[in-house]
Amino acid sequence: MSHNTFGHLFRVTTFGESHGIAIGCVVDGCPPLIPLTNEDIQRDLDRRRPGQSRFTTQRQEPDAVKILSGVMAHPETGVQVTTGTPIALLIENTDQRSKDYSEIKDKFRPGHADFTYEAKYGLRDYRGGGRSSARETATRVAAGAIARKILPDVKVRGALVQMGPHKIDRDKWDWDEIARNPFFCPDKNSAAFFETYLDGIRKSGSSIGAVIEVVAEGVPAGWGAPIYAKLDGELAAAMMSINAVKGVEIGAGFGAAELSGEENADEMRTGNNGTRFLSNNAGGVLGGISTGQPVVVRFAVKPTSSILSPRQTVDRKGADIDIMTKGRHDPCVGIRAVPVGEAMMACVLADHFLRHRGQVGR
Amino acid sequence: MSHNTFGHLFRVTTFGESHGIAIGCVVDGCPPLIPLTNEDIQRDLDRRRPGQSRFTTQRQEPDAVKILSGVMAHPETGVQVTTGTPIALLIENTDQRSKDYSEIKDKFRPGHADFTYEAKYGLRDYRGGGRSSARETATRVAAGAIARKILPDVKVRGALVQMGPHKIDRDKWDWDEIARNPFFCPDKNSAAFFETYLDGIRKSGSSIGAVIEVVAEGVPAGWGAPIYAKLDGELAAAMMSINAVKGVEIGAGFGAAELSGEENADEMRTGNNGTRFLSNNAGGVLGGISTGQPVVVRFAVKPTSSILSPRQTVDRKGADIDIMTKGRHDPCVGIRAVPVGEAMMACVLADHFLRHRGQVGR
Amino acid sequence: MSHNTFGHLFRVTTFGESHGIAIGCVVDGCPPLIPLTNEDIQRDLDRRRPGQSRFTTQRQEPDAVKILSGVMAHPETGVQVTTGTPIALLIENTDQRSKDYSEIKDKFRPGHADFTYEAKYGLRDYRGGGRSSARETATRVAAGAIARKILPDVKVRGALVQMGPHKIDRDKWDWDEIARNPFFCPDKNSAAFFETYLDGIRKSGSSIGAVIEVVAEGVPAGWGAPIYAKLDGELAAAMMSINAVKGVEIGAGFGAAELSGEENADEMRTGNNGTRFLSNNAGGVLGGISTGQPVVVRFAVKPTSSILSPRQTVDRKGADIDIMTKGRHDPCVGIRAVPVGEAMMACVLADHFLRHRGQVGR
Amino acid sequence: MSHNTFGHLFRVTTFGESHGIAIGCVVDGCPPLIPLTNEDIQRDLDRRRPGQSRFTTQRQEPDAVKILSGVMAHPETGVQVTTGTPIALLIENTDQRSKDYSEIKDKFRPGHADFTYEAKYGLRDYRGGGRSSARETATRVAAGAIARKILPDVKVRGALVQMGPHKIDRDKWDWDEIARNPFFCPDKNSAAFFETYLDGIRKSGSSIGAVIEVVAEGVPAGWGAPIYAKLDGELAAAMMSINAVKGVEIGAGFGAAELSGEENADEMRTGNNGTRFLSNNAGGVLGGISTGQPVVVRFAVKPTSSILSPRQTVDRKGADIDIMTKGRHDPCVGIRAVPVGEAMMACVLADHFLRHRGQVGR
Repeated sequence: MSHNTFGHLFRVTTFGESHGIAIGCVVDGCPPLIPLTNEDIQRDLDRRRPGQSRFTTQRQEPDAVKILSGVMAHPETGVQVTTGTPIALLIENTDQRSKDYSEIKDKFRPGHADFTYEAKYGLRDYRGGGRSSARETATRVAAGAIARKILPDVKVRGALVQMGPHKIDRDKWDWDEIARNPFFCPDKNSAAFFETYLDGIRKSGSSIGAVIEVVAEGVPAGWGAPIYAKLDGELAAAMMSINAVKGVEIGAGFGAAELSGEENADEMRTGNNGTRFLSNNAGGVLGGISTGQPVVVRFAVKPTSSILSPRQTVDRKGADIDIMTKGRHDPCVGIRAVPVGEAMMACVLADHFLRHRGQVGR
Repeated sequence: MSHNTFGHLFRVTTFGESHGIAIGCVVDGCPPLIPLTNEDIQRDLDRRRPGQSRFTTQRQEPDAVKILSGVMAHPETGVQVTTGTPIALLIENTDQRSKDYSEIKDKFRPGHADFTYEAKYGLRDYRGGGRSSARETATRVAAGAIARKILPDVKVRGALVQMGPHKIDRDKWDWDEIARNPFFCPDKNSAAFFETYLDGIRKSGSSIGAVIEVVAEGVPAGWGAPIYAKLDGELAAAMMSINAVKGVEIGAGFGAAELSGEENADEMRTGNNGTRFLSNNAGGVLGGISTGQPVVVRFAVKPTSSILSPRQTVDRKGADIDIMTKGRHDPCVGIRAVPVGEAMMACVLADHFLRHRGQVGR
Repeated sequence: MSHNTFGHLFRVTTFGESHGIAIGCVVDGCPPLIPLTNEDIQRDLDRRRPGQSRFTTQRQEPDAVKILSGVMAHPETGVQVTTGTPIALLIENTDQRSKDYSEIKDKFRPGHADFTYEAKYGLRDYRGGGRSSARETATRVAAGAIARKILPDVKVRGALVQMGPHKIDRDKWDWDEIARNPFFCPDKNSAAFFETYLDGIRKSGSSIGAVIEVVAEGVPAGWGAPIYAKLDGELAAAMMSINAVKGVEIGAGFGAAELSGEENADEMRTGNNGTRFLSNNAGGVLGGISTGQPVVVRFAVKPTSSILSPRQTVDRKGADIDIMTKGRHDPCVGIRAVPVGEAMMACVLADHFLRHRGQVGR
Repeated sequence: MSHNTFGHLFRVTTFGESHGIAIGCVVDGCPPLIPLTNEDIQRDLDRRRPGQSRFTTQRQEPDAVKILSGVMAHPETGVQVTTGTPIALLIENTDQRSKDYSEIKDKFRPGHADFTYEAKYGLRDYRGGGRSSARETATRVAAGAIARKILPDVKVRGALVQMGPHKIDRDKWDWDEIARNPFFCPDKNSAAFFETYLDGIRKSGSSIGAVIEVVAEGVPAGWGAPIYAKLDGELAAAMMSINAVKGVEIGAGFGAAELSGEENADEMRTGNNGTRFLSNNAGGVLGGISTGQPVVVRFAVKPTSSILSPRQTVDRKGADIDIMTKGRHDPCVGIRAVPVGEAMMACVLADHFLRHRGQVGR
C-alpha cells in the first residue's frame, strides 16, 4: 500500500476531493474477458450512496459512475468485457456546497484531519474535508465491485454489529435482515432500537461510534502469504485506511487475549469436502494464509467528529477559539462504512487471488 | 508491504527458518553516516532473546548478530557508520533440535500454520514451524534497532498491558517497572501476580493470550500520509504481521465505538510549544497523519498454540488423529512480542520519516 | 515501474485507449504548494499535439487537459497551487473514427502490438491500437509538465538527431532551431533536408525511423541510486517504454564499446564551482548517480508500422492474408517522441529528486 | 526496480561490498517444489568467476555459494526442493586485499563511481569500489540460476559479439564455440584474434569496451505487459543496471532508426505450430509483450576505467592530482558481463512468467 494506491497485482489508485469536480479511480490489473457493465458498479455504489435515509448525510449525490477505459464489446459475443488494460472510473460531484465551509476555513475541527493536513502540507482543502472526506470511499466501492467480478465464487458481506454500547447477539444474526433496514443491521429488533436511538443522537446534533463485521465465504485454503503480505495484515491495513476506523480484528480478535491455548486453537476433523475446522477463532487465517473457513474481520468506527456542540480548538493563527460544525453529516458514519468494508475485503482478496495464481500456479 | 519485505524507503527483507542454518535480514534505505555497531543491535536482540526466564521457551539461542555489509569506519573519525548501501544482518541458529519435530512431520497442529502452508505450497518445513516460527521476529528486532538510530528524537517503548483477563490499571502504570520483571509489565503488583499466574499455566502445559501496547513519543506533527499510506494503516499491517496477533487498535481503538462525538474528538488549545491536545483518543494520528502527540498502538496476541493437552486434528493423509505438542515453547508468547512490537513501530516511523522528508521536504 | 504506473515517490498512473472516451493520468506524490495551472500543462501538450504539420498524423485532437483534483487556490495568495493530494488529469478524445478500423478488426498488422495483445489477453481493442497507441503518450507529456514544475532549476530539452540514415553533425547543433521547424531538429539545414525527404516518404505511403536525444542540464551531483534504482537504469526503462523505441543509450552509449579506457573515462579538474569534468562520455551518470554534468540520453524509434504497401500477415483465424494499413498516421513517429522523451526524463528526475531528499536528506 | 531489489513477483535483493565479509542475495517469490541444489547455482557462478584466464582480474575468489534458507528435503522424495519461502544465498569474500586501495582512499578515479558516491552519501567505501564493484554481479548470477529453474523450457544464452571495433559476423556465429574460448565468443576465428588483441591491451595496462548479446529461446507469445511493465522496458533497466553498461537495444535496435516501415515490420505467415514471423527485427517483443520469437537484447559495456596510464583528477579536498590505478582488474570487463546479462534476462523472464500467470491465468 502506498499513498493513493493499494494492492499489488490488483491495484487501485484513487483521486479526488469532497468538493472538487470529480472523484474517481484507476483499477489496474483486472484480468481480461470479465463481463463488466456500469450497472455492476452502480449497484454497489447505490448501497453506499448518501441521502437515502435520515440516518446518513443529506448531501444528495447520484454517484453515477462512468467507465472511461478498459472495457469493450467482445468482438464475437458483443458482451462488454474487460480488456486487461486499466479501468478508469469517474464519479462527478454534483451537490458540493463549498460556501458551507468558508466559516471553518481557518479553524481546525477537533477529530478531523484539518490540523494534520495543515501540519504536513502547509495548507489544506477545507471544503468538506477535501481529500480526507469519506467521500473518497465511493471510489473504493466502485473498485470493489470490479474485485467481486474477479471472485465469482466468493461471497463478501458486511454488517453493523455494534452501535455505541449496543452489540448484536450472535444468535439473533440473520443476513437477510441487512437489506431491510437503513443500518445494515443483521438483527430485526436491534434495527428497530437503532431507529429511535440514532434519531435521538441526530436530533441532539451528536454522533456515535460503531463496529462493522465483514465476512468472506468461499475463499479456498491457501490464499495469502507469509510474512509481510499476510492476508490478515493486508486486511488490517485496508480496513484501517477507511476514514474514522480505529481498530481491526480477525476472528476472535482482542478476545483471543483472554483465551487459553485449549480454548483458542481451532481443532480439525476430516469432513466430506476435506478438512473441517470445529471452530473459527482464527477468522479463516493462520500464518497469514487462508484456512478455507470464512474470513472474518471486524473494525471499529469512531463517532463522526462533526457535531453541533461547541468544542475547544485553535485556528490557523494559533488563537484559542470555540467551534461548532454545521454542514451535512452522518450521525453514525459507521453505517456507510459497511459497503466500504466489503469493498476493501473484495479488493484484498482479488489481489491475493491473482498473486497466489502467479506465485504458486494453482 | 510485500511477501518478505516491508517498508518503502526504509525497507527490510527478512529470511530464514526456525531450524535452518541462519536467519537474517537486509535493511535497505538507511541513510549514510549514522553511527552503527553490533552492540546497538545486540542490545535490542537481547531483550527479545529466548531462555532468559522460565516464562519463555527454553531454547538457548545467543542470537549473536553479525553485520555483513553497509558499514565502514568513517575515513576521518574512525567511527563505524552506515554508508547508504544495504545492511545485511546474520544470526546463526545454534540450538535447533530438529529431531523434536519428526513426530509432527505429517500432522497439522491446531492453531499453527501447518495446514495452511501445506495448502498453499504443497509442503511445509515442519521443523519448529519453519518460516512461520516466531524465530523470524529476531530479525525484525535487529532491523528495528537500526530504525531507532535514524529516529534519535523519538522514544519507542512497549509494555504488556493484559495477560489473560487481567488488565493493568492505567493509574498504576510505571515505565520504569518494565525492565524489572520478565513480563515487560509496567505495574509492579501485576508483575508479581503474573509470576504465580503464568507458573500455573506453564506447569499445566497450557498457554494464555496477552495485549501489548507500544507508544512512540517525540513524533512531530505531519508524518504519515493519506490515503493508503496512512500511518495507522501501516502500523496495523506491521503489528498484524507479527506472529499470533489477532487485533490492532490505535488510541481509543474499539472503545471509540462506544463514544459520542463529544467524548471522542480531542479538543485543542494553544500551549507553550504550539498546539496542545487536551486528550489523545486519536492515539496520535488523524487522517493517517501524526498529530504530534504520542502514537499509541495496542495489539492482541493469541495464546501459544503448542500445548500439552491432546487436541483433535488430521494428518497429511486426511486421517483423524489426536496431537499433543511437546517441544520447547512460550507459555505466553505475548511477552516476547513486546520488543517485536517496538521494532515494528520504529521501522514504520523511520520509513515515514524518510518518505515525509522526500515528499514534503521538511 | 509496474504495469500502468511509473515512478516511486513521484508516481504516474495512466489510463485510456486511442478511441475510447478519454485518456488521462493520476500524478501521485507531487509536493504541495507548487503553483500549477492548466496552461502549464497545455503548453507542453501542444508541442506533442498531432495535426500541426503535414509531417504528423492528420487526426485533429485539441488535447485540452482538465485538472480534476489535487489543486486549489492558496487561501492567502489566491494562486492555484498543488495540495499534496493526487492530481488527476483528463483529456477527452474527440476525433476518434473507429469505423476506419473495422477492416483490421480480425487482422494482425505487422510491427504493431495486435498479435501480442491478442496472445496475452485473448482479445484486443482494434480501434486505433487501443491502449498500445502512441495516443497514450499525451498523458505522459501532461505528467511531465508537472514534473518540470518540481524541478525549477533543471532544464530538460530534446531534439531529433537522426532521421533514417541522416545524422545531425554535433558542430551544427543549435538548440534555438528546434522551435523553428516541425521536426524538433537542432540544425537548420538538416531541417530543410527533412522537409523534402519526409515528404517523399509520406507521399509514397512509407515511413522512417529516427533517433532522439534528450538532455537535462542543472541536475546536481548525487541524484540516483545504486544498484537497481540507477538513474540510467530508470531512464532506460522510461525511454524504452515509449511506443516504437528499440534502443537507449547514455553518454557515449554503444560508441563506448569501441573506446579504450584512456579515451572513455572522463578526467576531472577543480573548477570555479567545484569539480569540473573534461568530457562527458558518462552522459552525466556514474555508478547510477548523477555527476553534475548534463544527463544525456538517446533513443532509437523504429519507423511507423502503418504503411500503404501490402504486407504478408495472418488473421485471427490463422489464415494467411495481405494487409495495407490506411488510417491516419505519422510518417516518422520519432518526431512526436521528442516531447515524450523530455517528459519521461523530467518524471524520472523528479522521482529521483524526491527519493534523494528522503533518503539522504540534502 | 527499487534500490537494491529488482523484480516484482520474482524479487531479488542483493547486498555486500567488494571487500566486505560477504556478498549475497535474498530471492523472494520462487515457487515451491522446484528442485534446487548448491550445484545448480555454483555451475553458473563458475562461468562468471574471476581468475580463470589471463583475460580477467587475477583476484582469486572461489565464489562458493551457500543456501541459507528456503529449501528442504522433500518429505517424500528426499530431493532438495524450494519451499516458497525466501532463499538467502551467501558468498564469502576470501581474497580481498584492502591494503591495495589505501592509496586511492582520498582520490576520485575517473570513470568510476568514486566521485558520485561521495557526492551522494558524503563518504564512500574505497576498498575495491565497495558496493559499486562488479563483484556485486556474482549475486545476480546466483539469483539467475534460480530463475532458470523456474523457466525449464526457456533457454537463455549470451555471447560477446563485439570487442573494441571488432564485430562478429552473423554468418560466422556458432553457439557451440562459446564454451571453447575465454571470451564467450561465438566465432572461432574472432576468438583467436581476441587472444592477441586483448593481450596487447592487457600488457599496455589499457582496457577496451565490448557489446554483449543475450538471446532467450522458448518464450511463448504473451509474456510481458503494457505500458510501464513492458518486457523490453524491464530488460533495458535490467541490463543498464549492470556495471559499465552504457546502451541497450532490442532486436534491430538503433539500426531500426535507419529502416523504412517496409523493411522493419516483421511479416507473418501461418506455420506448423501457429504464427510464424518471417524476420525478427522486433527482437521478440511488440508492444512490450513477447511474440513467441527469440527475445534478443544487446548491451554495450564501456572499457574498464582502471588503467595504468596517469589520468587527471581531483582528490577529496578538491586539489588537482594525477592518478594511476594499479590493483587487479579486467582488461575487458565486458567478457564477464556475459553470464551476468544471461542472469538478468532469466530473472526478468521468471518475473514476467509469474506475473502473467497471476494476471491472465494462463
